[in-house]
Amino acid sequence: MADTWVRMVTAQTPTNIAVIKYWGKRDETLILPVNDSISVTLDPNDLCTTTTVAVSPTFDQDRMWLNGKEISLSGGRFQSCLKEIRARACEVEDEEKAIKIAKKDWEKLHLHIASYNNFPTAAGLASSAAGFACLVFSLAKLMNAKEDNSELSAIARQGSGSACRSLFGGFVKWTMGKVDNGSDSLAIQVADEKHWDDLVIIIAVVSSRMKETSSTTGMRDTVETSLLLQHRAKEVVPKRIVEMEEAIKNRDFASFARLTCSDSNQFHAVCLDTQPPIFYMNDTSHKIINCVEKWNRSEETPQVAYTFDAGPNAVLIAHNRKAAAQLMQKLLYYFPPNSDTDINSYVAGDKTILKDAGIEEMKDVESLQPPPESKDTSRYKGDVSYFICTRPGRGPVLLVDESKALLDPKTGLPK
Amino acid sequence: MADTWVRMVTAQTPTNIAVIKYWGKRDETLILPVNDSISVTLDPNDLCTTTTVAVSPTFDQDRMWLNGKEISLSGGRFQSCLKEIRARACEVEDEEKAIKIAKKDWEKLHLHIASYNNFPTAAGLASSAAGFACLVFSLAKLMNAKEDNSELSAIARQGSGSACRSLFGGFVKWTMGKVDNGSDSLAIQVADEKHWDDLVIIIAVVSSRMKETSSTTGMRDTVETSLLLQHRAKEVVPKRIVEMEEAIKNRDFASFARLTCSDSNQFHAVCLDTQPPIFYMNDTSHKIINCVEKWNRSEETPQVAYTFDAGPNAVLIAHNRKAAAQLMQKLLYYFPPNSDTDINSYVAGDKTILKDAGIEEMKDVESLQPPPESKDTSRYKGDVSYFICTRPGRGPVLLVDESKALLDPKTGLPK
Repeated sequence: MADTWVRMVTAQTPTNIAVIKYWGKRDETLILPVNDSISVTLDPNDLCTTTTVAVSPTFDQDRMWLNGKEISLSGGRFQSCLKEIRARACEVEDEEKAIKIAKKDWEKLHLHIASYNNFPTAAGLASSAAGFACLVFSLAKLMNAKEDNSELSAIARQGSGSACRSLFGGFVKWTMGKVDNGSDSLAIQVADEKHWDDLVIIIAVVSSRMKETSSTTGMRDTVETSLLLQHRAKEVVPKRIVEMEEAIKNRDFASFARLTCSDSNQFHAVCLDTQPPIFYMNDTSHKIINCVEKWNRSEETPQVAYTFDAGPNAVLIAHNRKAAAQLMQKLLYYFPPNSDTDINSYVAGDKTILKDAGIEEMKDVESLQPPPESKDTSRYKGDVSYFICTRPGRGPVLLVDESKALLDPKTGLPK
Repeated sequence: MADTWVRMVTAQTPTNIAVIKYWGKRDETLILPVNDSISVTLDPNDLCTTTTVAVSPTFDQDRMWLNGKEISLSGGRFQSCLKEIRARACEVEDEEKAIKIAKKDWEKLHLHIASYNNFPTAAGLASSAAGFACLVFSLAKLMNAKEDNSELSAIARQGSGSACRSLFGGFVKWTMGKVDNGSDSLAIQVADEKHWDDLVIIIAVVSSRMKETSSTTGMRDTVETSLLLQHRAKEVVPKRIVEMEEAIKNRDFASFARLTCSDSNQFHAVCLDTQPPIFYMNDTSHKIINCVEKWNRSEETPQVAYTFDAGPNAVLIAHNRKAAAQLMQKLLYYFPPNSDTDINSYVAGDKTILKDAGIEEMKDVESLQPPPESKDTSRYKGDVSYFICTRPGRGPVLLVDESKALLDPKTGLPK
């Protein structure tokens, strides 16, 4: 009996969107960035990774399944995370199940890992951030590691840079750090998700035919060839980090929006300054920016901030529910779904925003009026694949309900 | 009789395309730039402005016609040019026509100006550069001004910054100058059009539904809000100017292409770093860049350089005729004309490139094969309005043939 037990832990970790961007590494292996960054954690109810990790003396190798499909763990980034977390494993004793794992046993024991994203993996929605954060967090719990979430973030960082910011809810800063081994390049919470809870986030998943440059390749090219990146990293971002922390602490939406939009645009500017140039935004992204800019200018104070990661999808942060409902109307005016689409599948996540916008069925979308602040009255059907309504959310949690586990508690294989 | 004479001069001036870009003024009124720029003059046979200027004691006011339609001369930029050139007017004596104009007469005499572009004015093809250069050049000849073309360029500059570079053929540098009155902010020729005469230029006039930001407004916004522009102007461009002059002198196409592409991309990067951001390139522009980049990378040495001004049109500079013919095939593969278009109106200018590419009729376009170096085999019919094939060309010339004049020699009104 003592040789057939399976010990499992299941955790859920959010994704995050940077409002001061990370772009460029000073160390490729350790994943150390050229500047600090700040992100908003997104509500895991709408976008998250769930990971179950299991250990058993019956496992003869480390194995991993992503969204039900077995994937290789041989990549350097997985190996870095596994090695780092194993080094921090501690003794585990479970009297009920008669399990006892000594600290030194972890070196020989093998792991099974199953991970699942509740959103499309390839849609450019930071699935690797949530994924590596969840891997490291769940393994730390399984192995009884004593490190706090900041210390764990420095491990998750070695899987995917932005993963370190998914170890906390609310507003998170990744400090670039100074030391060579990267131990001080980690995430700290600026404010929790309750601090500024009237923000509403709408993600526009933009249709694209163009193959995108991976962010790993892209940022390497930028570091090697852009003559503007170092100026951004050394002169521009440090000031913006201070201003952004201040804006978040004071819930100063005007400053938050100005900094968020400017920093997104500057990140895409250094991509364009790369040889060969990198284009992540497309004409649809540009139209969304124009829509937001025109509206913000027509109001006394900004209503919405926009930010774009390494792809054409827009992440729009509205000041409050009222602004979000108005934004939803403008977005659905310009980007109605294809005729055969159900409005409830076109707008995923928190559908109460749709209700606030007065939209219950397709005919409500059809009868929307063009935004009065813009001369563009065209409608671009099909240019957006779908929207997700969400908000700032909490950090990683353990799921104690065993029915949520992705691995079978007896076999340690995917359910 | 002595009171009814009309004295006329007709000139033709080329347009130009910057390969090291001008973006940002340090003086809005005098039009003094924040950095030097370098351009290639385009063959006036394909793209030019023709201007006839006339003076007569019978004219009771200054008047101007552009492409046959009367326009106002009251704008500050026209007035600056007229004032500057009148201040340099000299005595004119034409014994044959019994005309004698004393230096001081020019202050009282009125002018008629007719100007015509042999290409679409609003297509973003630097019509104002050719236009102001031609205005100043023809007026200088009419008024017997003694200034050389460099000195005249400092006047044309006050009409439209890039106009100063249209006073010379071949390769032209606009030096930003140092003095407050702008007298040293003028154009000088780097090399004439015969120096590097195997270059071939293909312009893709890109279809666009988006309203563009005017370059005057755009560069003002960039100067006021971009945190990258000053770094570009002070640290990046001065080095590139030296390298570009060297590349041109040595006919070093690899360096020329690298600098041209990088500087175009950096100009668009600072536009994106502007608040609100400015997008001049669209998805079609991006596709053209990807096509050129992929091809250049697949060859041992670059075959084509690309550069984009304040709009989505691509200006593609091919190393030689062979590269231009291959480029034409790739472009026509990706961007075939709409079915009802005649290939000979779709490719304007020097049609021998089309012949070199083996394309005589629409079925030759239809049977083109996808470029082997790219995975993108899609065809984007209608995304390009038309192409213009041209080459580096000569500077301003006087047209002595009176039949070319745009004004009637008796009435001084448009023919």
